[in-house]
Amino acid sequence: MIIDCHGHYTTAPKALENWRNRQIAGIKDPALKPRVADLRISDDELRESIETNQLAKMKERGSDLTIFSPRASFMAHHIGDFEVSQAWAAICNELCFRVSQLFPDHFVPAAMLPQSPGVDPKTCIPELEKCVKEYGNVGINLNPDPSGGHWNSPPLSDRHWYPIYEKMVEYDIPAMIHVSTSCNPAFHTTGAHYLNADTTAFMQCLTSDLFKDFPTLRFLIPHGGGAVPYHWGRFRGLAQELKKPLLSEHLLNNIFFDTCVYHQPGIDLLNTVIPVKNVLFASEMIGAVRGIDPETGHYYDDTKRYIEACKILSGADRQQIYEGNARRVFPRLDAALKAKGQ
Amino acid sequence: MIIDCHGHYTTAPKALENWRNRQIAGIKDPALKPRVADLRISDDELRESIETNQLAKMKERGSDLTIFSPRASFMAHHIGDFEVSQAWAAICNELCFRVSQLFPDHFVPAAMLPQSPGVDPKTCIPELEKCVKEYGNVGINLNPDPSGGHWNSPPLSDRHWYPIYEKMVEYDIPAMIHVSTSCNPAFHTTGAHYLNADTTAFMQCLTSDLFKDFPTLRFLIPHGGGAVPYHWGRFRGLAQELKKPLLSEHLLNNIFFDTCVYHQPGIDLLNTVIPVKNVLFASEMIGAVRGIDPETGHYYDDTKRYIEACKILSGADRQQIYEGNARRVFPRLDAALKAKGQ
Repeated sequence: MIIDCHGHYTTAPKALENWRNRQIAGIKDPALKPRVADLRISDDELRESIETNQLAKMKERGSDLTIFSPRASFMAHHIGDFEVSQAWAAICNELCFRVSQLFPDHFVPAAMLPQSPGVDPKTCIPELEKCVKEYGNVGINLNPDPSGGHWNSPPLSDRHWYPIYEKMVEYDIPAMIHVSTSCNPAFHTTGAHYLNADTTAFMQCLTSDLFKDFPTLRFLIPHGGGAVPYHWGRFRGLAQELKKPLLSEHLLNNIFFDTCVYHQPGIDLLNTVIPVKNVLFASEMIGAVRGIDPETGHYYDDTKRYIEACKILSGADRQQIYEGNARRVFPRLDAALKAKGQ
Repeated sequence: MIIDCHGHYTTAPKALENWRNRQIAGIKDPALKPRVADLRISDDELRESIETNQLAKMKERGSDLTIFSPRASFMAHHIGDFEVSQAWAAICNELCFRVSQLFPDHFVPAAMLPQSPGVDPKTCIPELEKCVKEYGNVGINLNPDPSGGHWNSPPLSDRHWYPIYEKMVEYDIPAMIHVSTSCNPAFHTTGAHYLNADTTAFMQCLTSDLFKDFPTLRFLIPHGGGAVPYHWGRFRGLAQELKKPLLSEHLLNNIFFDTCVYHQPGIDLLNTVIPVKNVLFASEMIGAVRGIDPETGHYYDDTKRYIEACKILSGADRQQIYEGNARRVFPRLDAALKAKGQ
């Protein structure tokens, strides 16, 4: 089985974006604020948006199951207050849940949280609990910078975030550390902010002893870990200067990287420096980079091709990257698959 | 000849730091403010700080000449106002100039600028002019985020920066795009802020048409280009989505990467994806990562070893990376060397 651990619902029916735009307009003028019941998207519309997009590509490329969360750039936690984020997260999570019900063999949901700048993360717990208990979510996306590029939240190692971590440990779910749209003109969203956040999050963990407090906490760092594997020597050296243990002990029982790196040399590097047990297959397809690479004639985000062509991986390594690691990092996914005899 | 294009005076005599601390204390209490003349560092002290450190390592490792600028993390443009930065930049640039006079065969200076958050960059021009005309500086370091991690300056493509670019074009000098200390607790200075800035700067150029306005402007992106080479497919794909030309035409006549990547797989990747003509040898030695890599038994920042061991480079490629490219990107260095018959 091939599990893609990083998919977002980037192809939701237009009605969703329209509702969000009305919600944003309602921040300034409450008369424009839509009710949740105003959003009507039928099962047929959901089915079509998936069948002609993600599911078609999964079949074409040969992956089986996607861990599916709301569109990352649309989370936009910086917009409005907690109540705005709460209503928006609930709607987006419900849609991903419905997709998982319509295509139970192909999609399993992961939740966005109703984060809001300056608001205590524990306010996210009711939505998190609902998503795990009622919707069968197997993971969450945690935004280390709900301000959208101003980076004024405490580092991930700060006790500020501990209420979320306590719930993650209780439910045995990992978090993908994933920012959203940048509203800072210095940072292009998918070309700078996403990658910077990956590097920043890793370094926040490296300088801290977070995983001593939470030995079973698991973070998945997307986009191949930002700059981290490319600078693995730098990070090993910095850990050494800071008198931390080797990264293999200090971080690699808790931090995992996905394979959203859109060319062969990048995937080769990732698998050269990061142990196989820490790499999870992912494509984030129909995402930031949707075109066809003129150098290969294939989609940039068809990352399975790079894994297949990566010469240093054995068949057993690929099986870990495609399935084994995801089942270990997402135990609720493993349990759900086992319950179905898979 | 082997030219290291990225060296900072990280080993300046302690008197420099003491003066700076008094200057910082003087921001709150003007009675404590030191005079420039209070800083006394003898030639012998300068000589010793270099001979036992950078020069010793250059001889050990086999490089000949370092493009030498003030310590990056000490620039700290976010401290105080323009006047504070002006006095500090003048002092630091003078010290690098003196080092270049004491060791004319081994050090050539590059200038820091007296940037200050919210202050028009054109205020930096007198210092820049002095450094080029009187001190023989061959390049500058330009900080795209003088706030120190708050990123509230306009992107590098903005007209805000054009006065600096006009001078760079006039003098035919490149800029290394280099941030300083992060005062934002989200960002570790050398483990996150530096690498993020490299990626951010590249993407600011990618989304713009800056090099149409300045076809001869040259930026050197340090630390191997941050996350850029590792995600080269992503950046090629983003340029394509944005209907920009191929990166080879759009950016690679103007943007160059150094080799401050502290392990073999990173250097191999850099040279796999970035054309040889865009890679300049550098180590930033006695910098962020000063230890010995237990996996190799050699210093992490002894980057020449990685270049030597990089199998895809020919002898001619190495000559370009070690010397030819630096002489092309820093024409004033080339002219100075030629004037000495080198």
